[in-house]
Order: sequence, then C-alpha cells, then structure tokens
Amino acid sequence: MSTAVIGLGLIGGSLLRALAAAGHDVVGYDADPATREAARAAGFRVAGTVPEAIRGTELTALAVPLTVLPEVIAEMKGHDGLVTDVTSVKGPVRDLMTGFRFVGGHPMAGKETSGFAASEAGLFAGCAWVLCLEPHGTDLADWLSLAGLFTSMGAQVVPVTATEHDTAVAQISHVPHLFAAVLAQQLLGNPLAGTLAAGSFRDGTRVAATRPELTAAMCGGNGSAVRRELHRLIGDLQRLEEHLAAGDPTSALVPYLSLASHARGAWPPAPGTPEKVPADVEALLELGRAGGWVTSVNDTELAGMRPETDLFLS
Amino acid sequence: MSTAVIGLGLIGGSLLRALAAAGHDVVGYDADPATREAARAAGFRVAGTVPEAIRGTELTALAVPLTVLPEVIAEMKGHDGLVTDVTSVKGPVRDLMTGFRFVGGHPMAGKETSGFAASEAGLFAGCAWVLCLEPHGTDLADWLSLAGLFTSMGAQVVPVTATEHDTAVAQISHVPHLFAAVLAQQLLGNPLAGTLAAGSFRDGTRVAATRPELTAAMCGGNGSAVRRELHRLIGDLQRLEEHLAAGDPTSALVPYLSLASHARGAWPPAPGTPEKVPADVEALLELGRAGGWVTSVNDTELAGMRPETDLFLS
Repeated sequence: MSTAVIGLGLIGGSLLRALAAAGHDVVGYDADPATREAARAAGFRVAGTVPEAIRGTELTALAVPLTVLPEVIAEMKGHDGLVTDVTSVKGPVRDLMTGFRFVGGHPMAGKETSGFAASEAGLFAGCAWVLCLEPHGTDLADWLSLAGLFTSMGAQVVPVTATEHDTAVAQISHVPHLFAAVLAQQLLGNPLAGTLAAGSFRDGTRVAATRPELTAAMCGGNGSAVRRELHRLIGDLQRLEEHLAAGDPTSALVPYLSLASHARGAWPPAPGTPEKVPADVEALLELGRAGGWVTSVNDTELAGMRPETDLFLS
Repeated sequence: MSTAVIGLGLIGGSLLRALAAAGHDVVGYDADPATREAARAAGFRVAGTVPEAIRGTELTALAVPLTVLPEVIAEMKGHDGLVTDVTSVKGPVRDLMTGFRFVGGHPMAGKETSGFAASEAGLFAGCAWVLCLEPHGTDLADWLSLAGLFTSMGAQVVPVTATEHDTAVAQISHVPHLFAAVLAQQLLGNPLAGTLAAGSFRDGTRVAATRPELTAAMCGGNGSAVRRELHRLIGDLQRLEEHLAAGDPTSALVPYLSLASHARGAWPPAPGTPEKVPADVEALLELGRAGGWVTSVNDTELAGMRPETDLFLS
C-alpha cells in the first residue's frame, strides 16, 4: 500500500522503515529540516511539505504529537485517501478527523529513547496495536486493510472503540504516571525518605522521571477519561484509609490486597489458542473487549487470539 | 559481642551468618524445628528455647515478625542484656519493649526469596540500617555499640527516632504498596486493560504481587503513620483531579509534574563527602534527618556521610 508517514520521530520513523522493509512504497515528511535530512540520508524518499507527501498515496499515517495534529490536518484539506494515526488518545483525534476517511490507531510501542535516530523497522513486532472500530463510523474494509498491514509487521491488532481505548490507557498508563508523580514528590525537602527508599519506591516511581511536559500532554489530552478513572481509584484509596482506621487494620486490608495480588500475579496473561475471527464489527469488538487481538488478515479471513480466560474474573 | 539471634529467616539467618563471619560468638533460635535443624546443619550453634538462647549473651537480636514479638518478649521476662530487633515498624515495637535495655533497628535489606535457605552473610553490605535513637529513652553507649557492630558488617547506620522512621517507611514503602494494589486490581474483569498494559503498569504494580498477608501486616502494623501519609497523598491526587478539570489540563498539570520529575531524577542521591560526627544525640539525629548515616564507630570516634545537599529542596 503506498503510504505517506507524517512525522518521523521514533514511531513515525519506525513505521517508515517497517513499511519500506516490507516492500511498500513509502514517502516521509517531518516539520524539522534536520529530521528530513536524516531520513533522506538513511535512503528514504522525503517530501518537502505535507501536501506533497500525501498527494496520490493510498494511506497517510499521522505520527505527530496530538498538539500538532490540528496544523497538519489543516494542510490536508480535501484529501480523500485513507488516514490513520498513532497518537495515544483516540476520542479527541476521532473528533478532529471528522470529514476524513479515518481509522485511528495506537501502537503500544516505545523505548527509552526518541527521535528518528532511535527508530527501527522491528519496533512493532509483537506489540499491541490498537485499531479503532466504531459500530457506526468506521468503514470495515478500511479497518481490515489496515489490520492486514499492521499484522504483516508482526503487530497484534486490538479492535476497540475510541472510548474503550481511552478508558483502558487512562487505567494502565496515564493514572499510573500520576500515582508515580505523587509518590516521587514526597522526596522534596525529605532527604531521610530518599535514603531509606528502596525497591518498591524505585519501581513505583520510575515513570515519574519522564519529561513533565510529555506526561502532562498525555494525561491532559485524555483528560476526561483520566479524571474519571483517577476519581474512581481515589475512592479505592479512601476505602483502604478506612481499613487502616479499623480495630484490626491488618485483617481489614487482606481481602482487597488479595484481589490485587491475584490480579497482578495473573499478569501478563498467557495467550490462549488461535481462533478464526469473523470479519464482523460486533465479533471484532467482542474479541477486543476480551483482551484479544487479530494476528492475521487474508482478504476477509481473520485469525485471532485471546488471553487465557478466567484469570481476571472479579 | 556474644549475640543470640531469635528467628532465623532471611534477615535473622543473614545476621547469624554475618556475625559469625566477623568472629562474634553467636547462637540462634527459631520456633520452627526444621529451621533450627537447617541452621545446625550449616554449622551454627542453635538453642532449643528462647531462654536458653539468650542466657548470658550480651546482645539479643529479635528477627521475628511483629505479630510474633509479644510471645517472644513474654519468654524474655527479667532479661537484662541489650536487645535490638529488625522489624519494619519501630513505634509499636518500642512500646512493646518497655522495661528492656532496647535499641530498635531496621535493616533496609531484602530479597525476592525468604527463609533461612536464602540467608547470606553479605546481605547487609551497603544497606541502610535504621537504628532508633530517642532523645529521652535510648542509652547512647548502647546505641554506639550497636552502630559499631552494624557498620562493621558494611551497613550504613541511620540515626532517627522511631516516629521519624515510621513516617518515612510509610512514605517510601507502605503507601507505595497500597498504590500498587489499587492500580493492579483494575485488571479484574478487565482483560482489555491487561492486554494494553506495558512498562508503566508493570513497574507501578510490581509489589502488588507480594503475598497479601505480608503487605497487610506491614501496613497494618504501621497503621497510624500509613493512614496519615495515605490521606495526605489522596489530597495530592485530588488536586491533580482538579487540574484535569481545568480549561487547559495539560498546562495545569505541568508545575506539579515538574517537581515530581525533578525529585525522581535526583534519586538516588550521590553520597557527599565523609565527615566526622560528634557522639551526641542531637548531632546524630540531625545527620539522620539530613538523609545521612554513620559509616564507622571507633570508641566514640564516629565517621559519617550524607547525600549531596540541595537535591531535595522543595
């Protein structure tokens, strides 16, 4: 599929490389001239503007930060090709993309390093790649062609709605970043805590060292889901606070901690057995809600997998 | 110093080994006959009862869980030798030990494995070992002799009051365990979250897999400090919730996240320069509050170290 990749950082650069490695016709663009030069020097075709990059391509992949998306979209006015993106929040992007043939995506891939220099063709092998599917609003044929493209790179394509995605990433990534920040700032003016801190602190606060602007953009961009999930978890913490005020706090804490220990002990889940998946919106969404993913697409023959069942029953 | 070690799990067993390796006369005891047999088989002198173990020894080190301490203490009635312990909460133990010549301790050492089989003589090298010092209530000569013993094993002896210790460990260990549990239990009935979870979830929840009884005993045993610190951090989370409701949540979040990122980036702090430390209760407590520790004791000549300054200024 001929593809334009807009934004050549870690994800966009890796996508450019992966598509080229798989024999696709690709062209890249980045707003930064030095990045364009680096991509050219690496042997890629690079356009000088967004309109030049996307002209005549079947697919445009937007790999720019959420805050930059509106500018790029403004340059795409009237474009009628298929468009996808890789940003970490899906509801707001879906709303921005009204009027385009759009299927939102989010590859759950990352590294400690960023930028085109860190990009690699193999980045997506084995990674979960959310591909949004709305019961009303996504063209199934478009969705299937993207699912085929990304599974061919080794990604595990997870079919969910934008709303389901945004809730899940608030739960497993955005709120954990806020928890880490709250634990880490305890060190301020408190050197004794820094001296006594060990393994549980080290791991529980690791992501607090992330650049604050990045964490803020990620959480702020998914603001309403993060706020709702944070509020829910504050409620859980308040229940633990009540347990600590009980006559026998140790016994009062055990039931909740047992559920949590069970859940964490069962994660990551073992994959189950391969299965055939109907090329049907509801069947695909059911697969995604069950934690499953599409492993391959041949025409309309889909194969999938889901985690072993009953590990996460509440 | 002739020492009886009561409780031969990971910490007690390691203490037995470390003392023996340093040439001290040691005897061990454990309530479990199989553990006693294992310690005997490893070449150690092992007593059959607590009174037999402590009879005539200069020091008794209690290395049993907090819940078992009252039973052991009942068997020590009338004992007039110096006593220390290794439990992770210090205020409640101090209160239990009224009437004994007692200096509470807490080596911040641990491993994934537990029990005598996992014990090793080198466990305490480089670890922070809290040794409680109360302005009224601790005999300074007793404190100095224990500080000399533990620093000779390579431990960094941190002088703080029981109350300061309990607050600090609530902040950097006990509350982080509760945060991890709250994040981990989100997986229950939510397999999609389990499929999308990656690095920030993995690290932020690692300690949630701890045996729930252990986490509950640790938090419950330090209940009032954990409750107070948890309440304070819930307040911080509620402020973040307000930031997320702001017109521009991203900008609203940056100042708090910047402080947290600065704090985590500065941890662990680099050690500063070696210094002489006066053998004086207030000077020692000042060192501990600054995140410093005693590195050696020769008679009443103390050497110490503190982390590089100004990293944790708020």
